[in-house]
Amino acid sequence: MMKPVALLLAATLGAPLAIAQTTEPLVPDDIVNAATDDEWREIDADDLLVMTLPPDEAGKPRNVVIQLIPAPFSGTWTHNIRVLARGQWWDGMSVYRSVDNWVVQWGEGPVENGKDLPDAMVETSADGYALDWQTGIVNTLWASFGRRPAEELYDDMGEDGSWFNDPYSSAIGFANGLPVASDLETQVDADGERVNRPTRIWPVHCYGSVGVARSLAPDAGSGTELYAVIGHAPRQLDRNIAVVGKVIDGIEHLSTLPRGTGPAGVYETVAEYTPIVSVRLSSEMPEGERPRFRYLDPDSDSFAHWAELKANRNDAFYTVPAGGADVCNLPVPVKPVAD
Amino acid sequence: MMKPVALLLAATLGAPLAIAQTTEPLVPDDIVNAATDDEWREIDADDLLVMTLPPDEAGKPRNVVIQLIPAPFSGTWTHNIRVLARGQWWDGMSVYRSVDNWVVQWGEGPVENGKDLPDAMVETSADGYALDWQTGIVNTLWASFGRRPAEELYDDMGEDGSWFNDPYSSAIGFANGLPVASDLETQVDADGERVNRPTRIWPVHCYGSVGVARSLAPDAGSGTELYAVIGHAPRQLDRNIAVVGKVIDGIEHLSTLPRGTGPAGVYETVAEYTPIVSVRLSSEMPEGERPRFRYLDPDSDSFAHWAELKANRNDAFYTVPAGGADVCNLPVPVKPVAD
Repeated sequence: MMKPVALLLAATLGAPLAIAQTTEPLVPDDIVNAATDDEWREIDADDLLVMTLPPDEAGKPRNVVIQLIPAPFSGTWTHNIRVLARGQWWDGMSVYRSVDNWVVQWGEGPVENGKDLPDAMVETSADGYALDWQTGIVNTLWASFGRRPAEELYDDMGEDGSWFNDPYSSAIGFANGLPVASDLETQVDADGERVNRPTRIWPVHCYGSVGVARSLAPDAGSGTELYAVIGHAPRQLDRNIAVVGKVIDGIEHLSTLPRGTGPAGVYETVAEYTPIVSVRLSSEMPEGERPRFRYLDPDSDSFAHWAELKANRNDAFYTVPAGGADVCNLPVPVKPVAD
Repeated sequence: MMKPVALLLAATLGAPLAIAQTTEPLVPDDIVNAATDDEWREIDADDLLVMTLPPDEAGKPRNVVIQLIPAPFSGTWTHNIRVLARGQWWDGMSVYRSVDNWVVQWGEGPVENGKDLPDAMVETSADGYALDWQTGIVNTLWASFGRRPAEELYDDMGEDGSWFNDPYSSAIGFANGLPVASDLETQVDADGERVNRPTRIWPVHCYGSVGVARSLAPDAGSGTELYAVIGHAPRQLDRNIAVVGKVIDGIEHLSTLPRGTGPAGVYETVAEYTPIVSVRLSSEMPEGERPRFRYLDPDSDSFAHWAELKANRNDAFYTVPAGGADVCNLPVPVKPVAD
């Protein structure tokens, strides 16, 4: 069964902010800070992957926390990733590649650990890069007015509305707070009305997104080698590679690694590799050590206000509001549960 | 006098590639490598700024090369920057701020050098962030189909065309190979035809872009403090801050610096600062030491083919062409003159 897409148009987004009145224009963080407890969603411990690198030179711990995307998005790969983490399969491997404005890559590669792959691994296929639309797997989609078939919607846009255009899709949205995109198709509903419905939907690459490295197509990768984006969103990879989640804490431990000088940015010497101490699901860690995070629900009023303000900054630093934002400039607010 | 915008529509971009026939689909680098000498433009030595940091731990030199944007874009700031470089004013200062997925910042700040500002500095104003359109200051603009008043153009797009949409502007283009954006206004020309013409035009923030740090608006900064973007393009800063150029070589010497842990990512201790050995215009350096670079002319056939292919990868790694690209995913190819 198809579910109509709820489109948050500018008229909705432009509604007065239901936040304490102040004489100073709000900044986006004000809205995040004022969001109510029921607008935040805790990330399941089975969706949190913790990669521990050795402490830095000053002795500070280096943990990289990845939020896995919910099934059915990239479901075979996230299955394999959980299997590999439970098998402690990555322990002793390395971060072996770093390319500026592109990716940092780790896992199976130049440093092996001699372990067999766990039996519970499943086959993957390029068919899994995008899904047929189905109900209930995403938060609200926002129409992107730049792509067909949004022509009709285009006419509805107010002169002062915000633009969430996307050169890469017809609609943008979020699944458990992780960015996704969709095509839209204009259909005629039971009442003879023309409606825009999503047909295919897929996770997208933004800064911090984690994907599954692979060989040439049609190889789809198993999940043993992963990368994180450390530059401008490489959206051309969308639907060509499995996006499995996003680094929500500790990305700086990857983004500041020296860039590799070998072919494709692989480090030329073993001494340059960063060893992986361990990769664990939060749910497998001792109770007191589990990191806990929550994200601002993209279906919440606060998120809509936050996005509108991200697209229309009018605080003391800004003179000209942008009037729009791309999906990767709307990084869903995340904070520790303890905060 | 207004000049009509030359719009590179999909029909043009989709023309057969004038490159040696091959059985393998081309990758974008193939087109760059096949570009003819007359399609490359050498960057003027007065437009190249070289910031030298101390050698890294392995003793390798660390030079950051910045291409300055041509006047009249950000002209008062680039004037000041040349004055400061000629006065060797930044020597002995520091890189003092690093924020992940945001900027690295240097120059006047916590470490001063006791020198007076050069007399030749000029006043700056927020009025300079964007320009009224004038002839001859940019390469071809490409219409962005996502923004008004491109509605008419929208109808012309072929089903299989590429999309260079921009949530932040009506048209994108390049000035000396550096990215710019423009509004478009539909006007009626002398023949009664409706034509889309640019009205205002401004440089934009992409990965590697260099801008002028400042205090709250309306302060516009003088050029004494600069930053480079080390993350996803913060396009909301466009028209709110002066973009003065782009790092074309050595960005990794900035992007891999440890992130600052103080307020706003400023380093908490002097020991964390990276000293600036010198900042020089290439034109002021000894003849044999000047870095020389050239960029692929965005008005060239090879650039159009390259952009089309960037938006529609069909080589052995890709299965689904993106069908579009954003301006910051079209980083103008640059290479040393010696190559």
